Amino acid sequence: MKLFSLRPLAEQLFAGVRELSFDGVGVTRESYGRGESAAADCLRRFALGEGLAVEADRAANLVFRLPGTPGDGPAVWTGSHIDSVPQGGNFDGLAGVIAGLLCLVERRRAGRTDALPLQVVAFRGEESAWFGKAYLGSGALFGKLGAEDLELTQRNSGEILADCMRRAGADVEAIGRRQPLIDPSRIKAYVELHIEQGPVMVARHLPLAVVSGIRGNVRHNHIHCIGDAQHSGVVPRCLRHDAMFAVADLIMRLDAHWRALLAQGCDLVVTTGVVGTDPAEHSISRIPGQVEFSFEARSQSRDTLETFYRLMRDECAGVERERGVRFDFDRRLQSEPALMDKRVCGLLAEACAAQDIPFERMPSGAGHDASLFANAGIPSGMLFVRNQNGSHNPHEAMEMDDFMRGVQAMSDAFDRLCDEPAP
Amino acid sequence: MKLFSLRPLAEQLFAGVRELSFDGVGVTRESYGRGESAAADCLRRFALGEGLAVEADRAANLVFRLPGTPGDGPAVWTGSHIDSVPQGGNFDGLAGVIAGLLCLVERRRAGRTDALPLQVVAFRGEESAWFGKAYLGSGALFGKLGAEDLELTQRNSGEILADCMRRAGADVEAIGRRQPLIDPSRIKAYVELHIEQGPVMVARHLPLAVVSGIRGNVRHNHIHCIGDAQHSGVVPRCLRHDAMFAVADLIMRLDAHWRALLAQGCDLVVTTGVVGTDPAEHSISRIPGQVEFSFEARSQSRDTLETFYRLMRDECAGVERERGVRFDFDRRLQSEPALMDKRVCGLLAEACAAQDIPFERMPSGAGHDASLFANAGIPSGMLFVRNQNGSHNPHEAMEMDDFMRGVQAMSDAFDRLCDEPAP
Repeated sequence: MKLFSLRPLAEQLFAGVRELSFDGVGVTRESYGRGESAAADCLRRFALGEGLAVEADRAANLVFRLPGTPGDGPAVWTGSHIDSVPQGGNFDGLAGVIAGLLCLVERRRAGRTDALPLQVVAFRGEESAWFGKAYLGSGALFGKLGAEDLELTQRNSGEILADCMRRAGADVEAIGRRQPLIDPSRIKAYVELHIEQGPVMVARHLPLAVVSGIRGNVRHNHIHCIGDAQHSGVVPRCLRHDAMFAVADLIMRLDAHWRALLAQGCDLVVTTGVVGTDPAEHSISRIPGQVEFSFEARSQSRDTLETFYRLMRDECAGVERERGVRFDFDRRLQSEPALMDKRVCGLLAEACAAQDIPFERMPSGAGHDASLFANAGIPSGMLFVRNQNGSHNPHEAMEMDDFMRGVQAMSDAFDRLCDEPAP
Repeated sequence: MKLFSLRPLAEQLFAGVRELSFDGVGVTRESYGRGESAAADCLRRFALGEGLAVEADRAANLVFRLPGTPGDGPAVWTGSHIDSVPQGGNFDGLAGVIAGLLCLVERRRAGRTDALPLQVVAFRGEESAWFGKAYLGSGALFGKLGAEDLELTQRNSGEILADCMRRAGADVEAIGRRQPLIDPSRIKAYVELHIEQGPVMVARHLPLAVVSGIRGNVRHNHIHCIGDAQHSGVVPRCLRHDAMFAVADLIMRLDAHWRALLAQGCDLVVTTGVVGTDPAEHSISRIPGQVEFSFEARSQSRDTLETFYRLMRDECAGVERERGVRFDFDRRLQSEPALMDKRVCGLLAEACAAQDIPFERMPSGAGHDASLFANAGIPSGMLFVRNQNGSHNPHEAMEMDDFMRGVQAMSDAFDRLCDEPAP
């Protein structure tokens, strides 16, 4: 339990970053923006104080290593993201970065030398809440962003991603060309610690869990339903083109398909997180002429995602015919489902078992940077830490004891993963 | 056709008021606010230039008379409102005020003396779009507003109605005490010209129509559906409390009841004009924890309104049980259905017939200031003028020929109504 002595350091780091990004309700760390950069600065100061080497990569993610470790050789990677949703919680993402830093600090203080160096990455832009697309920082490393992504606008400021990335120091030109900024073959393994974002581990009294796979998703950020805005008192039902009734109709049709697919044993969740009539024209006494909404389906199965997406488009066409409205779609976005590596999972499971605490293997409903590593062929694993009150809200409440158990388990796994000589 | 010579005057007045309240898309004349006051000032200048007497009443509505006419004796009233919805059209409301002014101008130029004087009122605050309640200016005259209404807030500025009314010159203290500001017994008749706000007259090629009655309504400005905001990827369907799916479910249940009531021959329209997830917390990747929406049902039958309102509340309770959400209701608002006076309708019909143009009698789906006069026991009538493209939108398109026919018909009716000596 050697890592447990670093608990005060962990508490100090969580508190320091929280203070810099507190918004009065929760924490707000905008992707490639103010709160995220404040968190990065705080972590950099800490790492330098601990004698670690710190640099930014070409996507402006922060990279931490033991001093003297080469930056371009084979290595074991760990990390997570430092941005948050608006009014989010302090642990989603940040926990994995701090966990990695603690492992480095322990190795530095112990004077340990590994056959393979450990590298910690603090990713930017993992949350889709800001630009409508997730995994910006890790995606850029793998050449997965393109010119059209760089035109995405920030939800509040309206600034385009390219400008925000450039200001943070990213090589926007290379990213726009989809040029990979790292060589995946030099990443021996990727391990990410993250809070569980659902209610399962609390209900089952599990401090830790080993993640078996990550749900992919298919999304539209903006679908417009266009009807006909008219005075609410004067148009009979048969002559209406009510965009809100049409969207409600669509949502209930999707709900029915969702239930049917679950009954068939499919893995699926469906969400319309943003829905609204147009504030510039809506009124109690006006039939809504336009409703904008978002669509998201998540599943561990690519087939289920495709099936549900086709059903959604079919039902839109049905609602169009029956209610005399039109649906306009923006670009379809998707993230592939990802499987974690059996051997990495096994090492994490052994490390949990060594602490004699209950744990389980379970899928991740949320997406993570780890999915990009797994889908690039890099052996990847994730460790979940129990967290009360879900995530993406200010009430996230990870117990520090659970967290330190996770850090210890991850460090134990790194002892094994880093013990192998570079090929 | 003596009134037709005033057509250039009418065009000049419509253009003048439109210019003062154009917002780049349509016209915006805020109730007890900037655009409405600009319209009032424009009409006052015109009336003074024509030698008419102008004053404001205690609810800050503008009152126009022939000079020398007593302000407190028996009279025939006409008028309409000068506010508009946001990005609305120029004719909704304003047409009736300008029609009345033209009748006064014609009487002044002709040197006519009526047994009963004609009084024109330009009402403020008829549209519910600004404070969530309609008939503010006329309602205040009849003592129908109260202290709680004066606390309603303006949709954009958040200012309370009391402050906006006071700034316009209204006697807010008397209005808050529900003190009637006029004596209904001295109003011999009330006649209002208004554009039709639906598609019926255009479809039937009717320049004019005589209104038989006015739909009442029941409303909530703000209903909150409260669920549980969680990460969209991690909560299975059975554990969700999705406020948006709940509201969609409710709307579809209301739609089914609406269809059933129509099939039974009831008169009913139902609208949720304002619906939205909470911009402060919503995101594509978050289950909506809160949705705010408005509810409105309109009918010529008080029984149908009560029946549908009870069904709505029952369905809310059903959705609460089935989806684990909660509905919070603000104050229930209502406007009573109103019947127009047979004799006044008859005079308007005769005046239409005298011009040898097709017209019909029809109900009004929209509410009007006239309903307050009718429900106060004052013999009331309304004349509809054909209007393309509905209302409450920038595309209202009344033909000036149709309008002048309406002004002529109304003036003819006033010849009869004002010809009777005061009791």
